[in-house]
Formats: sequence, C-alpha cells, structure tokens
Amino acid sequence: MTIISKDHPRYISLVTRNKIIDGVNIGITSMHGLIAQGRGEAFDYLIGEHTTESAMHAQRCAIAYILLAKNPIISVNGNAAALVPKDIADLSNITGAIIEINLFHRSEERIEKIIKHLKLYGAKRVIGNKGDATIPLKHDRGIIEKEGIKIADVVLVPLEDGDRCEMLIKLGKKVITIDLNPMSRTAQASTVSIINNITRAIPDMVQIAKELKHKEKNELMEIINSYGNNIILSCAIDEIYKNLNEQKK
Amino acid sequence: MTIISKDHPRYISLVTRNKIIDGVNIGITSMHGLIAQGRGEAFDYLIGEHTTESAMHAQRCAIAYILLAKNPIISVNGNAAALVPKDIADLSNITGAIIEINLFHRSEERIEKIIKHLKLYGAKRVIGNKGDATIPLKHDRGIIEKEGIKIADVVLVPLEDGDRCEMLIKLGKKVITIDLNPMSRTAQASTVSIINNITRAIPDMVQIAKELKHKEKNELMEIINSYGNNIILSCAIDEIYKNLNEQKK
Repeated sequence: MTIISKDHPRYISLVTRNKIIDGVNIGITSMHGLIAQGRGEAFDYLIGEHTTESAMHAQRCAIAYILLAKNPIISVNGNAAALVPKDIADLSNITGAIIEINLFHRSEERIEKIIKHLKLYGAKRVIGNKGDATIPLKHDRGIIEKEGIKIADVVLVPLEDGDRCEMLIKLGKKVITIDLNPMSRTAQASTVSIINNITRAIPDMVQIAKELKHKEKNELMEIINSYGNNIILSCAIDEIYKNLNEQKK
Repeated sequence: MTIISKDHPRYISLVTRNKIIDGVNIGITSMHGLIAQGRGEAFDYLIGEHTTESAMHAQRCAIAYILLAKNPIISVNGNAAALVPKDIADLSNITGAIIEINLFHRSEERIEKIIKHLKLYGAKRVIGNKGDATIPLKHDRGIIEKEGIKIADVVLVPLEDGDRCEMLIKLGKKVITIDLNPMSRTAQASTVSIINNITRAIPDMVQIAKELKHKEKNELMEIINSYGNNIILSCAIDEIYKNLNEQKK
C-alpha cells in the first residue's frame, strides 16, 4: 500500500481509495468496483464529505427497521467488504442481521475470499456461497440464498444496483440502501435511502445500533413512522445545490 | 471484453467503462485511473452527458490556442490513451502538436506501451520516454521532456491534476484542460477549461481543428479574445444546477 502523509488535504479520500485498490489486489473487489468508488467520490465531494443531518435521520430509521425485523440481512459486495469489513461485522453481531455476500461479478472464489475476509474481522454469520435461490434479475445479483435474502423482511444493501433494489421492493421487502447519488434509481426506489459515504454510514450505524438496541419496540416504531424518505432525498439534493452555490463565482 | 447490448440505456457509458478496464488489462491504464473514470462519470451524469454550448465554445478556443502556438503539446496519460487513442493521434497530426506521455504512476514500461498504443492508432510524433527535464512537483508528473512540455507555450492536458495545472500556468504556459468537474482546482486554474467528457471533447476538437486550420491568424485571435473562462465555468455549474432542479421532487 502507498504511504499517504496524514497532513495531505485529501488524506481520508486517498486512504479509502487505497483500501479499494487493495481489495482488487487481494481478489475481493472487481475492477468495476473501482469505477463505482470514483462515482461515489464525486457525489461525496458534492455532498460536502460529511454526514448530513438528513443522512443521520435515515441511518437511525434504518437501524430501527433492522432491529424490528424478523429476518434482517446485510447484503455485502466486494467494495463494502474492502472498505468497512470490521464495521459490517460489528453491525451484524450487534443487530443479529445475517451477512449475505451478493456480487454482480460473481465467482465462487471471490465469494469465499470475501467470507474469509469478513470472518477475519469478527463476522459470525456470513452466507452467500450456496446461492440456492433466485430473484428475477438478468445478472448474477439475482442469485440469493433460501435462508437469507429469500426470506428476509428487511435488507440493507449498501452500494446497490437500481434494478435489484426495485425488485426487492417489488417482492415486498423493506430495502435500506447506502448511495451517495440522491437521484439514482436505487435511492429513488428504496424504503430508506442513506445518502452518505459507506465509510461514514456503517460506523455511524454501529453506534446507533448500540443505542437503539435497548429501546422499546414502540419507540423504534415511532422513529419509522416519523420518517419520510422523499424529504430525505430532497434534503440531499438541496445540500448539493447549496455546495454548488458556494462554489459559484 | 464483455459484450454490451446496443439497446442498453447506459450503452455508451458501459462501453467507455470497458475501454478503461481493457486499458488496465493491457497495462496502459492504472487502477487509480479507474477511480478517476468513475468520478468523471458522476459529473458527466450531472452535466447531462452531452456537449454543452459553453463546452463547445471552450473547445473552439482551445483549438485556436493550439493552432496559434509555437510549440503546442498534447499531454497524454493512461486514461486518455485508453479512451480516445485514434482521436488524440488525429488531433496531433492535424494541428502539428506533439504528444507527450506524462504519468502520475510512471513506469518506463507503461510509457513504452502507451507510445506503441498511440502509434498503432496513427500518431506520428509521441515523446515522453526520455524524461530529460522537470518541473517542480512532488510526484512523477513533474518529469517532462526538453523538447516537449519544457519549451511548450500551449499544453493540452486532458484529465489533469490540479497541482500540475497550477504549476504549468505559473511557468507562463497556456493550459487547456478537459475536466468534468467545473469546481476542481484544475478547471479553476486553467486558461481554457473544457467541461466535457474526453470521449466527446477530443473527437469534437478534431472536427474543429479541421475547420479552423484554414482560418487566418486574426480570426483565431478573435476567438481567443472573445473567450471568458470564468463565464464558461459558471455556465457549467448552472447546467448541473438545472439538471438537479429537474430531478427534485
């Protein structure tokens, strides 16, 4: 890994970039994942590279959904595993949500590597290598697990494809996504759209889960009932708008 | 290369993505280049994935500068070479501008591969493998050539780093950049900032060069004198603004 000086103005962004490249080098991230990372970087720049107040609301609502779910699943791809393996493991262990590996560029080898990688960071229940069920999609993200996404009522899908998100919603599941583009099909279709960088969102969610875990069911329901996803998306676009305005000469 | 159906709504974007991945596979593009491609994709999406009127103005002004220059140089990196090799070769041959390979992640092997790649597409004068001069930068993009960027009065630098752009300006050169982010340091510092996708900009510029090549010097001067880069940047931000507004619910 290239050494990056801590006083570099783009330190966090560069460290994140190297994590993804390391992910490719160890075979858990695809090259397409690097392009996706770049798209995220651009939107993060426009959002202001911080967790906005509206994203924090979405994150709290997401955790409320996960804690109230009967069968919550955290769907993980190569980018998520490369960027926040420890936090995904923690989130799974704290909430009881099973981790299911689901890849666009699927290979048995890559799935096994990701499972091993997450377990190294403390994840206890990681599935996805059986692929014994499907949802109607034209690509490999349609391959799922009977005991996982198939029976899930709530699915957290960081860094998602628009069509899978829409299909999961169509199948009656509550879908939580983490996507920096508030205008994407994914963000528009989700039950809860977290417009935040996954490297900030998942650690935040671990903390929120620790806090909300001890709340009563009705308190969690209240968080869900008072949440409006369209307002959250609108706030994110406003944030970009505001940042652009400040840049304009 | 993955086969992509021509009726896919994101056909052009997916083909471009595969060109960059092929660039990595044949050793001319770096993995960091994939991330840069992703950032560009995001801004292109916000610009509306078309050549705006203001970008067309910038492209005309850029060609006027190149045609009037004593020593014009087209600085090329791994992404540019992977995406538009034929158009870069054509632009060099039509305008007489020499192509100089200049890489952030420099290796002799990669430079030789890029030179070979561009020559395969018809480029006649490609330099960069000597690296017999420098400009004061902390990274390898500071390595240049005596007969190239060192003596250049006009440098076209598609897909540029902010600090090199600023340094070239400081050294008294006219710098033309192609960068989809109108707020980037590069776009802000350049003499002419083309806020357009390189896959549209360079082919456009080839056509413009064919047209302007036969114009009188004073006509080219008029194009330059009537050009305002700040207005162009402002127009690009407005374009993003407008597109965001249309998306907002």
